[in-house]
Amino acid sequence: MEKDKKMVEAITSMSEDFARWYTDVVIKAELIDYSSVKGCMVIKPAGYAIWENIQRELDARFKATGVENVYMPMFIPESLLQKEKDHVEGFAPEVAWVTHGGLEPLQERMCVRPTSETLFCDFYQREIESYRDLPKLYNQWCSVVRWEKTTRPFLRSREFLWQEGHTAHATEEEAEERTIQMLNLYADFCEEVLAIPVIKGRKTDKEKFAGAEATYTIEALMHDGKALQSGTSHNFGDGFARAFGIQYSDRNNQLRYVHQTSWGLTTRLIGAIIMVHGDDSGLLLPPRIAPLQVMVIPIQQRKEGVLEKAEELRRTLAEAGIRVKTDDSDKSPGFKFSEQEMRGIPVRVEIGPKDIAAGQAVLVRRDTREKRMVKLEELAEETRALLEAIQADMLLRAREHRDSHTYTAHSYEELKEIAETKPGFIKMMWCGDQACEEKVKEDTTATSRCMPFEQEAIGEVCPVCGKKAKAMVYWGKAY
Amino acid sequence: MEKDKKMVEAITSMSEDFARWYTDVVIKAELIDYSSVKGCMVIKPAGYAIWENIQRELDARFKATGVENVYMPMFIPESLLQKEKDHVEGFAPEVAWVTHGGLEPLQERMCVRPTSETLFCDFYQREIESYRDLPKLYNQWCSVVRWEKTTRPFLRSREFLWQEGHTAHATEEEAEERTIQMLNLYADFCEEVLAIPVIKGRKTDKEKFAGAEATYTIEALMHDGKALQSGTSHNFGDGFARAFGIQYSDRNNQLRYVHQTSWGLTTRLIGAIIMVHGDDSGLLLPPRIAPLQVMVIPIQQRKEGVLEKAEELRRTLAEAGIRVKTDDSDKSPGFKFSEQEMRGIPVRVEIGPKDIAAGQAVLVRRDTREKRMVKLEELAEETRALLEAIQADMLLRAREHRDSHTYTAHSYEELKEIAETKPGFIKMMWCGDQACEEKVKEDTTATSRCMPFEQEAIGEVCPVCGKKAKAMVYWGKAY
Repeated sequence: MEKDKKMVEAITSMSEDFARWYTDVVIKAELIDYSSVKGCMVIKPAGYAIWENIQRELDARFKATGVENVYMPMFIPESLLQKEKDHVEGFAPEVAWVTHGGLEPLQERMCVRPTSETLFCDFYQREIESYRDLPKLYNQWCSVVRWEKTTRPFLRSREFLWQEGHTAHATEEEAEERTIQMLNLYADFCEEVLAIPVIKGRKTDKEKFAGAEATYTIEALMHDGKALQSGTSHNFGDGFARAFGIQYSDRNNQLRYVHQTSWGLTTRLIGAIIMVHGDDSGLLLPPRIAPLQVMVIPIQQRKEGVLEKAEELRRTLAEAGIRVKTDDSDKSPGFKFSEQEMRGIPVRVEIGPKDIAAGQAVLVRRDTREKRMVKLEELAEETRALLEAIQADMLLRAREHRDSHTYTAHSYEELKEIAETKPGFIKMMWCGDQACEEKVKEDTTATSRCMPFEQEAIGEVCPVCGKKAKAMVYWGKAY
Repeated sequence: MEKDKKMVEAITSMSEDFARWYTDVVIKAELIDYSSVKGCMVIKPAGYAIWENIQRELDARFKATGVENVYMPMFIPESLLQKEKDHVEGFAPEVAWVTHGGLEPLQERMCVRPTSETLFCDFYQREIESYRDLPKLYNQWCSVVRWEKTTRPFLRSREFLWQEGHTAHATEEEAEERTIQMLNLYADFCEEVLAIPVIKGRKTDKEKFAGAEATYTIEALMHDGKALQSGTSHNFGDGFARAFGIQYSDRNNQLRYVHQTSWGLTTRLIGAIIMVHGDDSGLLLPPRIAPLQVMVIPIQQRKEGVLEKAEELRRTLAEAGIRVKTDDSDKSPGFKFSEQEMRGIPVRVEIGPKDIAAGQAVLVRRDTREKRMVKLEELAEETRALLEAIQADMLLRAREHRDSHTYTAHSYEELKEIAETKPGFIKMMWCGDQACEEKVKEDTTATSRCMPFEQEAIGEVCPVCGKKAKAMVYWGKAY
């Protein structure tokens, strides 16, 4: 039992130091390893398998809306990056530059894509001629590079994995519709699959994407009360189209600029899963995204028939479509329990000689630790029901946590007090003036997260300046 | 019909100019677009969907052998690349160098991975301590960069997509077993899914991978009689382990070096599919890998009930698990036929008013153009059988083509004559001396493709030098 204890002790508790708890979980649950490449991480099997499940789920949802996958070059010639003014200003300071190919210097240096708007625009400019070619609904799964100074696993990394959708439409309305459609798709995915409730809304001009007309976001609240921007969808209007000359001839043979969107979601989401659901025993994965949903752990496995029965249960569960393994390693049951909890596997099945004699097994929920005896012949059914219950309860708890950590500020003093004492979202009215937004940030370090689609009438004026308010804003300290 | 003709005329015929035929197909079947990034391509939806199917099939086969997916950084610090002498010599001349991150020069330049042996070794060095940690069976799907001077879509591109498996084992035997296991997996995949027969064998020392002890290859024969190396599997012995200090303590607590393998397969395989199966009407995709297996083409689609019936047939086929679409665009049926043939969709279903009246549809094979009437109630069953027949026939034809283009040279004069007059593989004995291998290349431009596992007794001596022969070698001009 010495080893078990050691393992549990090895994680910092959340309340003691949330940041250290996070990195402890990331390492101990074997999601990543630090690499010899500064600011980049190795995503290990347990981490990558989560990303594969995210990919599979999202990709199917994209394709159901008509999206097709493509692959663009990873390099962007400097002249191409510079074509859209706001865009280059936003990204040029944080890209990695390739200056030599083989033994020779390049005639023009290229950056490793930080995002691929310019490549898609260059492609669309050649590809789109007539209204018949529209819409273009393309997406790619790839890695991108942003030369961040300070990095944290999954949350901020010099290289990260993502998908970036890029669409081109005949009309403004259609582009806006697609922008919102994809934001809703992200939000539904987060709630239904990751059990993460999100606030949907529009970013202020200060916080929007470099080159976008409007940026929409989904914002999630982490366990420590900090916000995490978890996915964004941008409407570019015809700004990029004008910069790149992407025109189509309409039904009347008139040349018009296309309207474009882009939307992206990254491995950062794995950070959100950890920080929304994890606890002091480690990771806790929602069953729908968990690479492994059940671990069967034999008790007194050297006793006759135990390993065979464990394998039989594993097979029964696998045949019922459940992702399951048996831990038949040399370790003690207690150590195996700790490991299964650390790795966030939602359910464990304990089976020992006494259970076998009684024709039952023990089902243990990772989230509540609740134990339940089940008859062996009902194991598959009970486990499936339990996985569904865990998924539903995880969403409920996350929503409850978010709602109980969402505050309303009616005055600027109240905002400052909440920001100082209560971690969470703060709802407050805003006049639309960037100066007020900056003042809030300066005084509290909280930033405007979004102007939520669901506006509430919590006041008439902007508490910062006293002028007429334009919108209610969610504020929060953010990752 | 003017348009149809124009479309067909737009492809160069194979016999006229095979290289132009290839690029015509690649563009007209909408697999790729050239990009503004020299030597890199845009993989369009029709091309990327083939790669997605390759990934899905291969990935499942990998996982069935215990392989897990991971993700390594895309950058390799120069000092890391240099750790294994042969490896750096092989790759340093053809990598892209990143020298600046954001606005500042890097302290140490990094290359964009041309392959990731060094990153995996660096990782394994930290990760592996005891025999309990072995074997490690990791793979990643990613893009890599090699700064080629001359490029061709799919075949040789500065950036390409691939998978690279990297394994570490306790013993030499286990590493060799895994190397061969993955080569066999590749060969089976090519034959069963891509309908491409391959020769399995070992590369000569001259042709092996930089840093490998032994490289095994699968070699396919293209329609023009040129060879294409289609996948490789390397046994590294303990060379990388010694260079990177990857040791484990065995059961007796003795420190030992691990034995490693790597194996990779790339988007080049799409080039092989095109050049093995395509014809003068365009692409021809084996049904198992075709993103779209059937195109339903309504005839006289404005007549009442035709589009409805076409949609009904599409649904029937989709429900039978067939990948199918209806082409209900404004184009003429003839134009649609050309497009479906150009895109290599294996089967088309024609349905018009007369067919509806007769309760039947026309099934047309893309490979042989054979037409067959089928009763509507038997459509799904007949189509499924037809797809299977096409898949089997494509493999038979490819094998027949390869066998009828494989020659045996008993003398050096004969080798030179065959190499000059008959495109294909040439089997000839070899003494094992690199000088003879180089002489063959100099005199004929043919290179040694491999020493096949299936050796044949075609002679006692090396026809080049007259010394005792060590092995039969497949020679050929290659892509």
